[in-house]
Amino acid sequence: MAAVHSTASLSPAGARPARRGSTLPPGLAQARNPETIQRIVAAAEKIFAEQGLEGARTDAIARAARVNKALLYYYFRSKEDLYRFTLETLFGQMRAGVAAAMEQSAASRDRLVSYVNGFFDFAAAHPNYPRLVQREVIGRGQSLHWIVPVYFGPLYRRLTATIRSGIARGEFRRVDPQHTALTLIAMTVFYFAAAPVLTELWRCNPLAPARVAARRRSVLDFLEHGLFRQGARTP
Amino acid sequence: MAAVHSTASLSPAGARPARRGSTLPPGLAQARNPETIQRIVAAAEKIFAEQGLEGARTDAIARAARVNKALLYYYFRSKEDLYRFTLETLFGQMRAGVAAAMEQSAASRDRLVSYVNGFFDFAAAHPNYPRLVQREVIGRGQSLHWIVPVYFGPLYRRLTATIRSGIARGEFRRVDPQHTALTLIAMTVFYFAAAPVLTELWRCNPLAPARVAARRRSVLDFLEHGLFRQGARTP
Repeated sequence: MAAVHSTASLSPAGARPARRGSTLPPGLAQARNPETIQRIVAAAEKIFAEQGLEGARTDAIARAARVNKALLYYYFRSKEDLYRFTLETLFGQMRAGVAAAMEQSAASRDRLVSYVNGFFDFAAAHPNYPRLVQREVIGRGQSLHWIVPVYFGPLYRRLTATIRSGIARGEFRRVDPQHTALTLIAMTVFYFAAAPVLTELWRCNPLAPARVAARRRSVLDFLEHGLFRQGARTP
Repeated sequence: MAAVHSTASLSPAGARPARRGSTLPPGLAQARNPETIQRIVAAAEKIFAEQGLEGARTDAIARAARVNKALLYYYFRSKEDLYRFTLETLFGQMRAGVAAAMEQSAASRDRLVSYVNGFFDFAAAHPNYPRLVQREVIGRGQSLHWIVPVYFGPLYRRLTATIRSGIARGEFRRVDPQHTALTLIAMTVFYFAAAPVLTELWRCNPLAPARVAARRRSVLDFLEHGLFRQGARTP
């Protein structure tokens, strides 16, 4: 977990990235121009998604953010620091959205429904997310060494724990909790990751709100029948 | 579909890639050294998966295949031709495996079970497949323009047609056929695509046969409860 603490070097104020959905790290929020940093991170997210860490140029990011490169390097000492900060900000938002949704519910089935809804809300608002993650996965990127323990691991364990407790409480069928958690993640993530294929296949925008809503309904319906015991299903 | 025919240029014999699971294109199978071509394509598959089309060097592919570069260029006129031939061979094998499995069954539920089994058999035997596909998806690669209509589209339509007919025959619940097809694809593909994350998360090899078998059981179980009507379920 030591890797997490190295994010302290990402900003001059020694701030760590926001954990609860704010776009700005606590330290940088007091910076003279928080909006500037937001612009830099938004531009970086888009350009890193399109080009990858290696392919992206800080010149292009600075230009897209309408700042000069010296200012970009004042906040982020290197392209690698900016990349990590950008990923941490995005993952922090994902975790905040999903966790907040899950914590509102006591019943296991409601927690899983909240997970799906929380993830859909996040993914629909952050179209660069799947591409950034996939770049790390296929590149066997170094970042997986902190993304997995800090973000994916806790989420995965939260889902398996919810499934285990749902089985114990008689809300769910007796399933393999680990694989069922993966299935749940697969059902939610895949649609957004496969968007370029669906665009080609359907000849329309799969991320249009009505289509995302149809996808969400179908996932919730399949989850209900695939996992929930009869008595625990919504009427 | 014109793009498909351009594969005619991929071999000196004008052969098109194998469509039914053979590793060799029909024309090249009569070549003096079919094993040489197999070695080149196997090396290309691995190196393109690791480095991508742009990053891969034909020198490295020739070296890994133990052939000299002139021979590689005799069979494949350019790196792009070799890349396309490699992808077509792999997709052809995927399609052959899945289609053969599905065609053996009459009942809709058996056809979907066969799809899952066919895909699992293919994916377990071809660990480079998900990474090659993901590279195309995140790179918005030109190849999507033929991969989707020639391979993904027909498979997707076959699945939706099977789901529609299963609903009509009372084997399946009334679901959205398109989204349920995507869910089925997501459940099967995701595990193999996420293998690098699972390796980090579980600290073991997710592609070990026993783990792939457990994943397959869980997917089939979830499919059965998520889609099949009570009377149509396996006892």
